[in-house]
Amino acid sequence: MNSKQTLLEKIQNNNEIVGIIGLGYVGLPLAVNFAEAGVHVIGFDKSKGKVDKINKGENYIGDIRDAVLREVVDKVTLTATTDFSKMAECDALIICVPTPLDKFRKPDMSYIESACTDIGKNMSKGTFISLESTTYPTTTEDLMLPIIERESGMKHGEDFWLAYSPERVDPGNINFHTRNTPKVMGAMTEDGYEIGEALYKKAIDNLHKVSSPRVAEMVKILENTYRLVNISLINELALLSGKMHINIWEVIEAAKTKPFGFQAFYPGPGIGGHCIPLDPFYLEHIAKQYDFDLSMIHTAGHINMRMPHYMYIKIATALNSQKKAVNGSNILFLGVAYKPNIDDERESPALEIMDITAHKGGEVVYHDPYIPQVRTNEGRTFNSLELTAETIKNADCVVLTTNHKDFDVEFVKEHAKLIVDLRNMVDKKSEKVFKL
Amino acid sequence: MNSKQTLLEKIQNNNEIVGIIGLGYVGLPLAVNFAEAGVHVIGFDKSKGKVDKINKGENYIGDIRDAVLREVVDKVTLTATTDFSKMAECDALIICVPTPLDKFRKPDMSYIESACTDIGKNMSKGTFISLESTTYPTTTEDLMLPIIERESGMKHGEDFWLAYSPERVDPGNINFHTRNTPKVMGAMTEDGYEIGEALYKKAIDNLHKVSSPRVAEMVKILENTYRLVNISLINELALLSGKMHINIWEVIEAAKTKPFGFQAFYPGPGIGGHCIPLDPFYLEHIAKQYDFDLSMIHTAGHINMRMPHYMYIKIATALNSQKKAVNGSNILFLGVAYKPNIDDERESPALEIMDITAHKGGEVVYHDPYIPQVRTNEGRTFNSLELTAETIKNADCVVLTTNHKDFDVEFVKEHAKLIVDLRNMVDKKSEKVFKL
Repeated sequence: MNSKQTLLEKIQNNNEIVGIIGLGYVGLPLAVNFAEAGVHVIGFDKSKGKVDKINKGENYIGDIRDAVLREVVDKVTLTATTDFSKMAECDALIICVPTPLDKFRKPDMSYIESACTDIGKNMSKGTFISLESTTYPTTTEDLMLPIIERESGMKHGEDFWLAYSPERVDPGNINFHTRNTPKVMGAMTEDGYEIGEALYKKAIDNLHKVSSPRVAEMVKILENTYRLVNISLINELALLSGKMHINIWEVIEAAKTKPFGFQAFYPGPGIGGHCIPLDPFYLEHIAKQYDFDLSMIHTAGHINMRMPHYMYIKIATALNSQKKAVNGSNILFLGVAYKPNIDDERESPALEIMDITAHKGGEVVYHDPYIPQVRTNEGRTFNSLELTAETIKNADCVVLTTNHKDFDVEFVKEHAKLIVDLRNMVDKKSEKVFKL
Repeated sequence: MNSKQTLLEKIQNNNEIVGIIGLGYVGLPLAVNFAEAGVHVIGFDKSKGKVDKINKGENYIGDIRDAVLREVVDKVTLTATTDFSKMAECDALIICVPTPLDKFRKPDMSYIESACTDIGKNMSKGTFISLESTTYPTTTEDLMLPIIERESGMKHGEDFWLAYSPERVDPGNINFHTRNTPKVMGAMTEDGYEIGEALYKKAIDNLHKVSSPRVAEMVKILENTYRLVNISLINELALLSGKMHINIWEVIEAAKTKPFGFQAFYPGPGIGGHCIPLDPFYLEHIAKQYDFDLSMIHTAGHINMRMPHYMYIKIATALNSQKKAVNGSNILFLGVAYKPNIDDERESPALEIMDITAHKGGEVVYHDPYIPQVRTNEGRTFNSLELTAETIKNADCVVLTTNHKDFDVEFVKEHAKLIVDLRNMVDKKSEKVFKL
């Protein structure tokens, strides 16, 4: 029996061990899904804090129900470790590490490279490897494969199989989660796809096959580039509409009545989170290698990058209407999460607007029911204030930066001297409300 | 009884006369819809040819059934005329004239201006006026209103009412036509909206109210800008994918499996038709007046403008692989319509590619089952050839420019020496097939 058949049989008999590398908002839900399906899962992470939490059954990801995590940990179908030598026990290794941008907005491939080095050094023969992190096309074949072969001394297609299958996790989405979101996979060989399919279908309802890892890599980037470009477009149109005294929110609601060929996007203070503001620049990066300038991504990125500055100007303009300067004014930001009803402030434009405002002498405070403390890019630390009539009255300006459904907009409106509404939360027109 | 009540009563009793100005792909279907609802309609057009055809019950618009036109003409609920003095008989005037770009890609407002002058000179007191043509925000209030008031000596809100309600006609769409496509309307006054609503709801199932004409003007431009930007984005990604040996069509099919936050657009040889390539530049034009640069539209327009040139290079590259030059080669284009299954070649990128190819010495021929003859931008005239095995064999290269469903791709593939497929019509890989 060759190693492919051995592995397929293990999977069929539920005897395989799946290693998940990186236990964040992608890796942990996936680990839980496998474990729920009765698969033995080992979670790998360099953070001792995360590993300890998981082994105690303590959940730290919003989209996972606490009881479910506790159950799979109690049954020992899921364990976590910082000991990467345990990769040797795994039949499959799924990589869910971050792919951020560095300070110069270039791809930081160090997490993937490090995972591949660890895999190459530790894995046993006959292992299936899949990357889920978003990255530029050619990463799997041209970056990962050489590292793994070099570190392991093994040969792809005989000793191990490599595939790319992008995560599609949408934090806070109540309809679609890891299991019921169709998953794209492209393997380097037919054998690899066959193994990957047998494995993934335990945790994912629907798999969609593509012909190669690089196609799958492009799929994920297309999905997120589509969002970056459309949000940037509507942001640019929102800025123009402001100048033309046109309510962009009213425009979008009306355009949505078109029953074909339109999808609504909404303006905002900028694009946040760990995907949309970053992924397209992975593609822009690799495109340079092909002497290709991605002008749409470039332009969209430019608009997005400027949005927090425009929002600062909106705040200054609003204060100016009441004969106040930013310098010395108390400015209360409501919401620092990058999107509503989640506790994630990564790349959140709110933080950048707070930095600019503080830099200009504003007394910055914030309230977010999901996030008790934040540290901005420039290193300022803020603690969430309680949202009382007093807090609101003390502010010269209240800036609505995140549309958490918990916010009592009427209460805010009742007590605020001045509101800058960047999320279309206040319905009625009023002299004290300035809208994006 | 004031003039508003008089008009509303007429509408209620089906005694109103509706004048439709411009009897093209927007005006004629609208006229037929009103006439079918039992409203007496007078169609105005400067083309004696069109007017004569209609009065003989001869249809020239693909989306109208011949029998329906004949029926409403026979019942004399629809008549057409070139005599604009008959506007005096009308209680409502709906403007459906073209809004093209001039040679320098600036809005050509002459059709709207001319319609407004005719209306001002001829209309009676108590007329409701609506513009349906796509145009930049502020047109209705800042361009039309002054002309109509000046020419008529009447006063808006007392003697007449002005509204903007953009057409959403999608030629060839089998699910959505004039009646069942929701329609946005913004009037200058509440009275105007009330009258417009009473009138339009005879021909249109659902109206969506917005607060002003300029909001409605922006709605239409947003809808079409969304399409321009997304088609341009996917065209740019298609060009990069070609360089990276990634099949963009496979990428799009896979991305479509994402059940939220994605809408598929497809690459092609460029953007054609009378809306998508033009409308966004109306907005770009007015934006300048507000010292505003619409970078997304600008970038999208640039990509779109270059696409026919890239497609020419694809043809030259394909011929080169068979050691042939464009100069002296016989090149057969299949399809000149700007989209499938319609007989409209306005702004079609096929014509531009044919011009470039002919300019470089290619012997250009074409076949389109819907369009027997075309005249290119550079003034070349071509007649559609019959599509025989012989015609295909004679061609050094067959270029698939429009994906008409009538095309027998297998037949083409059987006889062609070389195919350049710009519409993903050929399934299988082959050395003689070059794909966008």
